[in-house]
Amino acid sequence: MPGNVFGERLKISTFGESHGEAVGVIIDGATPGVELEESYIQIQMDRRKPGQSSVTSPRKEYDKIKIVSGVFEGKTTGAPICIMLFNHDMRPSAYSDIKDSFRPGHADFTYQKKYGIRDHRGSGRASGRETAARVAAGAVARKLLERRGVSVVAYTSEVGGIQCERFVESFIEQNPVRACDPEAAEKMVKLIESLAIEGDSCGGIVECVVRGVAPGLGEPAFDKLDADLAKAMLSIGAVKGIEFGAGFAAAKMLGSEHNDQMNSDGFLTNNSGGIIGGISSGADIVFRVVVKPTSSISKPQQTLTVDGTETEISTVGRHDPCICPRIIPVVESMVCLVVEDHFKRQAALLN
Amino acid sequence: MPGNVFGERLKISTFGESHGEAVGVIIDGATPGVELEESYIQIQMDRRKPGQSSVTSPRKEYDKIKIVSGVFEGKTTGAPICIMLFNHDMRPSAYSDIKDSFRPGHADFTYQKKYGIRDHRGSGRASGRETAARVAAGAVARKLLERRGVSVVAYTSEVGGIQCERFVESFIEQNPVRACDPEAAEKMVKLIESLAIEGDSCGGIVECVVRGVAPGLGEPAFDKLDADLAKAMLSIGAVKGIEFGAGFAAAKMLGSEHNDQMNSDGFLTNNSGGIIGGISSGADIVFRVVVKPTSSISKPQQTLTVDGTETEISTVGRHDPCICPRIIPVVESMVCLVVEDHFKRQAALLN
Amino acid sequence: MPGNVFGERLKISTFGESHGEAVGVIIDGATPGVELEESYIQIQMDRRKPGQSSVTSPRKEYDKIKIVSGVFEGKTTGAPICIMLFNHDMRPSAYSDIKDSFRPGHADFTYQKKYGIRDHRGSGRASGRETAARVAAGAVARKLLERRGVSVVAYTSEVGGIQCERFVESFIEQNPVRACDPEAAEKMVKLIESLAIEGDSCGGIVECVVRGVAPGLGEPAFDKLDADLAKAMLSIGAVKGIEFGAGFAAAKMLGSEHNDQMNSDGFLTNNSGGIIGGISSGADIVFRVVVKPTSSISKPQQTLTVDGTETEISTVGRHDPCICPRIIPVVESMVCLVVEDHFKRQAALLN
Amino acid sequence: MPGNVFGERLKISTFGESHGEAVGVIIDGATPGVELEESYIQIQMDRRKPGQSSVTSPRKEYDKIKIVSGVFEGKTTGAPICIMLFNHDMRPSAYSDIKDSFRPGHADFTYQKKYGIRDHRGSGRASGRETAARVAAGAVARKLLERRGVSVVAYTSEVGGIQCERFVESFIEQNPVRACDPEAAEKMVKLIESLAIEGDSCGGIVECVVRGVAPGLGEPAFDKLDADLAKAMLSIGAVKGIEFGAGFAAAKMLGSEHNDQMNSDGFLTNNSGGIIGGISSGADIVFRVVVKPTSSISKPQQTLTVDGTETEISTVGRHDPCICPRIIPVVESMVCLVVEDHFKRQAALLN
Repeated sequence: MPGNVFGERLKISTFGESHGEAVGVIIDGATPGVELEESYIQIQMDRRKPGQSSVTSPRKEYDKIKIVSGVFEGKTTGAPICIMLFNHDMRPSAYSDIKDSFRPGHADFTYQKKYGIRDHRGSGRASGRETAARVAAGAVARKLLERRGVSVVAYTSEVGGIQCERFVESFIEQNPVRACDPEAAEKMVKLIESLAIEGDSCGGIVECVVRGVAPGLGEPAFDKLDADLAKAMLSIGAVKGIEFGAGFAAAKMLGSEHNDQMNSDGFLTNNSGGIIGGISSGADIVFRVVVKPTSSISKPQQTLTVDGTETEISTVGRHDPCICPRIIPVVESMVCLVVEDHFKRQAALLN
Repeated sequence: MPGNVFGERLKISTFGESHGEAVGVIIDGATPGVELEESYIQIQMDRRKPGQSSVTSPRKEYDKIKIVSGVFEGKTTGAPICIMLFNHDMRPSAYSDIKDSFRPGHADFTYQKKYGIRDHRGSGRASGRETAARVAAGAVARKLLERRGVSVVAYTSEVGGIQCERFVESFIEQNPVRACDPEAAEKMVKLIESLAIEGDSCGGIVECVVRGVAPGLGEPAFDKLDADLAKAMLSIGAVKGIEFGAGFAAAKMLGSEHNDQMNSDGFLTNNSGGIIGGISSGADIVFRVVVKPTSSISKPQQTLTVDGTETEISTVGRHDPCICPRIIPVVESMVCLVVEDHFKRQAALLN
Repeated sequence: MPGNVFGERLKISTFGESHGEAVGVIIDGATPGVELEESYIQIQMDRRKPGQSSVTSPRKEYDKIKIVSGVFEGKTTGAPICIMLFNHDMRPSAYSDIKDSFRPGHADFTYQKKYGIRDHRGSGRASGRETAARVAAGAVARKLLERRGVSVVAYTSEVGGIQCERFVESFIEQNPVRACDPEAAEKMVKLIESLAIEGDSCGGIVECVVRGVAPGLGEPAFDKLDADLAKAMLSIGAVKGIEFGAGFAAAKMLGSEHNDQMNSDGFLTNNSGGIIGGISSGADIVFRVVVKPTSSISKPQQTLTVDGTETEISTVGRHDPCICPRIIPVVESMVCLVVEDHFKRQAALLN
Repeated sequence: MPGNVFGERLKISTFGESHGEAVGVIIDGATPGVELEESYIQIQMDRRKPGQSSVTSPRKEYDKIKIVSGVFEGKTTGAPICIMLFNHDMRPSAYSDIKDSFRPGHADFTYQKKYGIRDHRGSGRASGRETAARVAAGAVARKLLERRGVSVVAYTSEVGGIQCERFVESFIEQNPVRACDPEAAEKMVKLIESLAIEGDSCGGIVECVVRGVAPGLGEPAFDKLDADLAKAMLSIGAVKGIEFGAGFAAAKMLGSEHNDQMNSDGFLTNNSGGIIGGISSGADIVFRVVVKPTSSISKPQQTLTVDGTETEISTVGRHDPCICPRIIPVVESMVCLVVEDHFKRQAALLN
């Protein structure tokens, strides 16, 4: 599946299974001569790792990264940067029950049908653990974007029907759900904790803002900036939709309301979400993704065995009742990769 | 902007501006030996062309296609298929007013910033006319999919707040908004006609169903089937969001509700929209896109001139007050291209 | 066959058959704002067209190009540039004999085996006429390279065993074989004219020099500058080999002879042909390609019919007894495309 | 430098520096369900490793590979296969002298100019050690090709002016230069041993034969089979040229000699080297590459220091006086990758 390569001028290849030897990533095309330390990447890894709080899986993943290539004396060399995460907390036996049955909501059934063979251990390649490699790569892209004055921030705006009503940016990394509203965050935590006890899970919405992108990024007709961001987001297993700016609300709007008018101070509104005709407008890039409820729940569910017999399954394990807080660094990472890639494409175009 | 190429094994390149000589497309990778007639493609072109009804632009585009290469004695040869649409109804003078000002909602501003130069005639490359080339290419992909028993149907499910309540598939092509509900369609037509008089426009939602795809299409990690569909959809200028299956409603659902359980008859629900872990599940692929209100309205709006002076603009012209009915063949075309491409990728993988 | 797209950041797609409606090319990624006139491109087309002299085919190809898109008011806009060459001198009847038999040296047999179907008219897609599209694209790349002070010159250095002994650059475009040595050129012309009478053909060697490329172009490990040039050259139907710098003579050299030593004036020799480790060294890029004898000859040859019966064939027609003079603009064009593409890649890397 | 990714449907990404932590490769797109053992890959690694005989470098590289992902219970899963080779015999101190000067023939100068920074330890990314990753990937491709009955064999046909006169296939792996002629092999060994004493090196020619490819592989116009093979070969650092079939000798041939005529037994000759019009003809694919003399020699040579001062350098170290025997598995590996990739592309085309 050559689908494991992403990007044009900043290109990444991820590999590895949840309970294999390691997961990792190669980043090809990073600007040479840029300072890059493992500790900088590790900060992002720690935001994604399980066991951070009462609302995340207590599973212990040693998300300690190692730069294997492409960095010399603390600087990128222009050679491909390989970053590895060796797996340690492997409990294949804990997954023997899922060897023979398809867990609802998981990719067990579809992988079996696609490949005719399946590494069932902890979802194998389909595990959320694959996103650790993306976060490592995203940290490299983030470093490159810092030079340009671009920042990427994502946060939980809704969980299980509880919506954030206000935006306190400084609070985002101070609460376990990474919500932007202290009151909503408190309710979200309670909901998630109660779902953990019930053996159920819930979905949510993550919003992302990209600041500091000047007008001009994005390549019509097909590689529009929003098109590439949409692909990046939907490539995250739990994401089932995306909307930019006014998003689905635009279906109920008039053109006279939706058009972002301009005066000499800039745009009067940002219904377009900072992207018009596939190209950044200079306004903040704003989009939201919907995150489905975690598929792994301990409530019993109907399913089939690999040989087609009806059965019931309840996924015992150490799972996140709501994946929003841990998906946020993944969202940011993919955004960093897309935006940095488009900066490089623009440089190629204009050169 | 090498962003004008789309697809991996069925690869298209579009070219042409709204008021240039022609728009067109090259389709590279079509299976050889397949019967292909211009009349088959023309059917799809006619679904997209303006002037079809009271709710579409009265503009006359000669969307008469010509196959220039790749077809010999009525069959594809495996060589690239070039399809041309020569432009005839060009009125560059009608656009002289937009030469010096940026129309709100349009890509005038962003193109100027990106390229430093802009073919302003009828939006140039950013015109919806570019999608005519996609529809031509999509018709070729549709032909290839027919061999596989795959069908792709899109329809308007909401316009300006009016929602379809029932699904009458046979009615879709029988009404000017391509809605799936006769009662809703009538209201939609009235709304659109009144907006045309007011010089305003409205948005809507288009839903798409793909039937007949067996389990196994889609390439994790990045080229997931939903990721590629999302990119394809957001590459359409007026589309601002997409959701699969339960979509944004998943934010309010529990895992026990959202997971698609199975018994020996198949899936009990289709909240995943036919794609799990990025791979088709065998259930219908279902997604919705939000279509923004047409940017061209005759109501006066604030904007800037090219040299930065504040001004007012009202876009006089022959525009669609709601683009949903005409975007439907574009949506279907892009879906056909993505799905056929993934069939070819899967053949390569398994071979 | 998605093999019809070439390049990364300056990407071209060619289409069209020898005796179809047209051949053409899309160039995607050209820098916006660059002056580009049809007459500039036409100069290169005229260097490739048949009927230039006594040593080329008297066939009349109307290689009059038309820019269909991507240029506005005389300047590139950043949109894809489509250039068309409509076919006029089509004589399908002249090729009815080759419909049923495979001409030795031609791609008749391999196309039939690959695609199961074949547009036999004048070799269809496999015709040398496809290279006209490349020359049109190459002229655009040449224009972009002029801004950088890069020049690309190719010339015949050997024909049918007659070798050039001296290099008179100003003479190259003054003789019908485009040889760099006046005395050798005279002998070459005589040889080719006599072969034309005999109904036979001969091969030769074309050498190419690229000047003005600063050190640093080329992307290890795989997209080395010489690797991409080699691919470009071997993608020309009649080219069967390439060598850089000392080339095959290196097999007989010692390291102490072959290594290009340096002093403060630069390299003392250029055995590497201006590329070391896949990256331009700043010295002239120098390579040679071998051009096989034209496959179309009127001497009778053994072959098979499409249904496998043994037969004899003699290709009557208007063919070039030696393709070297007309392949030169094709060689230069492909080189321009590769080098300009690598300039853009380098800009992306360093940005 | 996103130039580190190669292939379309069987795609590899290599990474790692000579004296970094490891070199490795990701192979994406391998057919699932195929048996693959580390020992199978190790056989090819051992053919490339130094220290095999009196004519290769006595350097000890621990080319012990480890499959990190993509294989489960001894079979490929369709997930990316990561193969690592950890470095052990690192002696950075041995290379401190090359930190400040550019070794003639090496990529020291061009890397410095391209990236502005250079990992000088043992040539860093430009080291021949990078090819170990290719051999590992090539072994996977070879495994896939075995299912198709395709074999790839390369051998030394010339070293330092000594040419093989006969072809004894069974002898190739029985002699340290991997020559195909026992008498020539003996002379080659003597020559190489004497050059080792003198501190000099020599070049040679490697020939490669691919058997068992049915007609139809290769994608015109640009991704011709010979074009892709040429790119693959020139992407190997020491290769400076390639020729197919009759190769450069075609410059002296007539069309009536060069054309491969056919009768019902097949082609009467193979001057085309098994590829016509970029597509395999069913005949053996035959090509030759020229291998330059090893750049590392201990004879003193003129060069510059990094800051531009003239100096002399003599590369002390453990180098191969002739790289032909060790380049052979690299050549074969790249060929396996290209051919397997084209099988997959052909499956996609016809599907």
